[in-house]
Amino acid sequence: MPTIVQKFGGTSVSDPDRIRRAASRVADAREAGFDVVVVASAMGRTTDDLIELAERISPVPDRRELDMLMATGEQASVALLAMALRERGCSAGALTGGQAGIRTDGVHGRARITRIECGRLERMLSRGEIPVVAGFQGTSEEGELTTLGRGGSDTTAVALAAALRVREQGGCCEIFTDVDGVYTADPRLVRHAVKLPRISYEEMLELAALGAGVMHARAVLFGEKYGVPIHVRHSQKPDSGTMISRENASMEELAVVGCALKDELGRVSIRQVRNAVGLQGRLFTALAHSNIVVDDIVQTEQGAATMIAFTVEHPDLGDAKQIVARTLAELGEGEMSVEVGLAKVSVVGVGMKSHAGVASRMFRALGDAGIGIHNITTSEIKISCIIDHAEGQRALETVHSAFGLGLGNSATVAMQIDSSRI
Amino acid sequence: MPTIVQKFGGTSVSDPDRIRRAASRVADAREAGFDVVVVASAMGRTTDDLIELAERISPVPDRRELDMLMATGEQASVALLAMALRERGCSAGALTGGQAGIRTDGVHGRARITRIECGRLERMLSRGEIPVVAGFQGTSEEGELTTLGRGGSDTTAVALAAALRVREQGGCCEIFTDVDGVYTADPRLVRHAVKLPRISYEEMLELAALGAGVMHARAVLFGEKYGVPIHVRHSQKPDSGTMISRENASMEELAVVGCALKDELGRVSIRQVRNAVGLQGRLFTALAHSNIVVDDIVQTEQGAATMIAFTVEHPDLGDAKQIVARTLAELGEGEMSVEVGLAKVSVVGVGMKSHAGVASRMFRALGDAGIGIHNITTSEIKISCIIDHAEGQRALETVHSAFGLGLGNSATVAMQIDSSRI
Repeated sequence: MPTIVQKFGGTSVSDPDRIRRAASRVADAREAGFDVVVVASAMGRTTDDLIELAERISPVPDRRELDMLMATGEQASVALLAMALRERGCSAGALTGGQAGIRTDGVHGRARITRIECGRLERMLSRGEIPVVAGFQGTSEEGELTTLGRGGSDTTAVALAAALRVREQGGCCEIFTDVDGVYTADPRLVRHAVKLPRISYEEMLELAALGAGVMHARAVLFGEKYGVPIHVRHSQKPDSGTMISRENASMEELAVVGCALKDELGRVSIRQVRNAVGLQGRLFTALAHSNIVVDDIVQTEQGAATMIAFTVEHPDLGDAKQIVARTLAELGEGEMSVEVGLAKVSVVGVGMKSHAGVASRMFRALGDAGIGIHNITTSEIKISCIIDHAEGQRALETVHSAFGLGLGNSATVAMQIDSSRI
Repeated sequence: MPTIVQKFGGTSVSDPDRIRRAASRVADAREAGFDVVVVASAMGRTTDDLIELAERISPVPDRRELDMLMATGEQASVALLAMALRERGCSAGALTGGQAGIRTDGVHGRARITRIECGRLERMLSRGEIPVVAGFQGTSEEGELTTLGRGGSDTTAVALAAALRVREQGGCCEIFTDVDGVYTADPRLVRHAVKLPRISYEEMLELAALGAGVMHARAVLFGEKYGVPIHVRHSQKPDSGTMISRENASMEELAVVGCALKDELGRVSIRQVRNAVGLQGRLFTALAHSNIVVDDIVQTEQGAATMIAFTVEHPDLGDAKQIVARTLAELGEGEMSVEVGLAKVSVVGVGMKSHAGVASRMFRALGDAGIGIHNITTSEIKISCIIDHAEGQRALETVHSAFGLGLGNSATVAMQIDSSRI
């Protein structure tokens, strides 16, 4: 009997009614003949409430103690979900991350899973029981409680699916969320956007990095590494969502599977500095130490001087300016300029690797629409253009249409940006 | 350096301000030169809120899952208390019951502590750290989370004090609560009641059984078994409270240390049944299975027939009647009568064992005050009289005065009833 891992996010277990509905999804899968392992996040806003409570006691709470506190959120929700399953007559048992055998490197607040001891899960499955595992947490070899950081519950689910070899049995990891799946573009911005039935790990990774919050990049990476098929689907709807898996023949035919918009970006540009060895390391280490997430980085040379520009989200712009100014003062050279009100439109697709002309088609479409391009960055499977914020939505629609994505088109493959979800 | 265990109840850690105040009590003890182990209950109404949430999902939640849920309450409060201690510059670390080495028999919802592995606590103390241990919980040998049931956090504190041999070092177990200590009678009912500086375990046990909620009987029993001095004191006041310890010379001179009133009692009387072997077992097993707490039981014989009467609290009276009626129907004989509106006044003192005339003095005082006695029950160190509820407070004052307890009297020893605390 194939095993599937079903993961329910915070909104899917936010109150007793939703917990009961989640339980009925699990029971349905059980009745359909699957062995099921359940992973759940903390109920609704619990995690935020706990952080707020901690900050009322300590402005910068100790990470170890914060982990002790945060881990209670998932422990409570799995206990309740197990009760709901038992109430339906299913034999279920809640497990903390540690009890489920999830061992981490012991780094508080952002632990990495080092191994999973599957013994207890396998014994429960062989007895026909449903393990309900607290997401986002594990214990170190010393028995310390650790949380996995952002995207932690998705990572728990995919890691358990990998450890239990669900793919080899014909199973998968189902991520239940509050969106239908991955779309060709954010359907709130592009009316013709359509849901993608399939997408590759690489494409999903690029899209996640571009702000598509359907799944956290870290969990997708885990899925890619162990080849775990990940099915992203709506927790309240019976329809299939989007299957994330290794690229296949039909995928390779598509140059571009989706496009994305990230807005509210600012750009810091540095000119007139000598390209000394270590300059970049010094600059970006200072930014990283201040927890500033740097988006794209572009560097060009003009004679002896160099130009470095990078984008950050608006809220980080003030701090980024200060750090760059301090670094330039220490160097005793260079000029800084700052722009606000930018956005980034990107196209993504593994097929891009083997298809020429994707970049030119994108640039031409934006040019024909009268949209100026400030910066360009590319990866193996992605092309991004920095444009004015005011033209963001129109740029997204233009690109979506230029690659024949969307409704009524055979090349319908997709993504959705939902920055409200982590 | 002597070790003390400090236990903070739910009201003492109910919000960030109170958590900070609890932390300052701990820091004071640390500065006074003690090694400190802290035990805390769940914040304020957390435990009740969690039970309510569980019951919205399952009317009778599975005990194992309920333990998983309940254990989060104490885990959250110790994490926050450890943060508050670190914020004050104390080196502190929160521990779950399992991490603190508390092993139980694995019976969910009412586990018993089987042993305590002190290694981790001792290592922390030797490094000058303050372990902050989640009360009310432990893990079984299989790693299952179990809660200790009513009075659990007090029991955790006393058990840790026993395991760490605090008495041998000149330390004790401090129970911080929202009352000043143990009084000669409930000061809300008897104006002249005074706080007892000392009381014996046995006296405290009788008083706890009589409804004096200052400490749970179970924790006192643990203290008695291992000779742990227990200091019950107010969490917001610097004054000493009441020290519970083995009886000493000065204690033995006192016939009666305190008196108590338990009201809202009902009585079920059964007449005209033959005293067959097993009758009592059958009856009280049925009551116990329905979780009805039977207070006093009296049995007398009249020829071939027997009379059994027992008291229960008013809320349990309806169920108790049904169960007795069913049992009598099965027996095919007997009559039942039920009275409501009763109360029980009791005097307690270890000195009673060696002092004659305590009973007669109590009965005479009640008689002189015109208070009728419906039933009498006695133990080695306690005499209780069932009286009319309406005369409860007057009876308590009468007895308090008859034994010379209270203000202005040298025999000042005491107790307090506070049924709002568990």
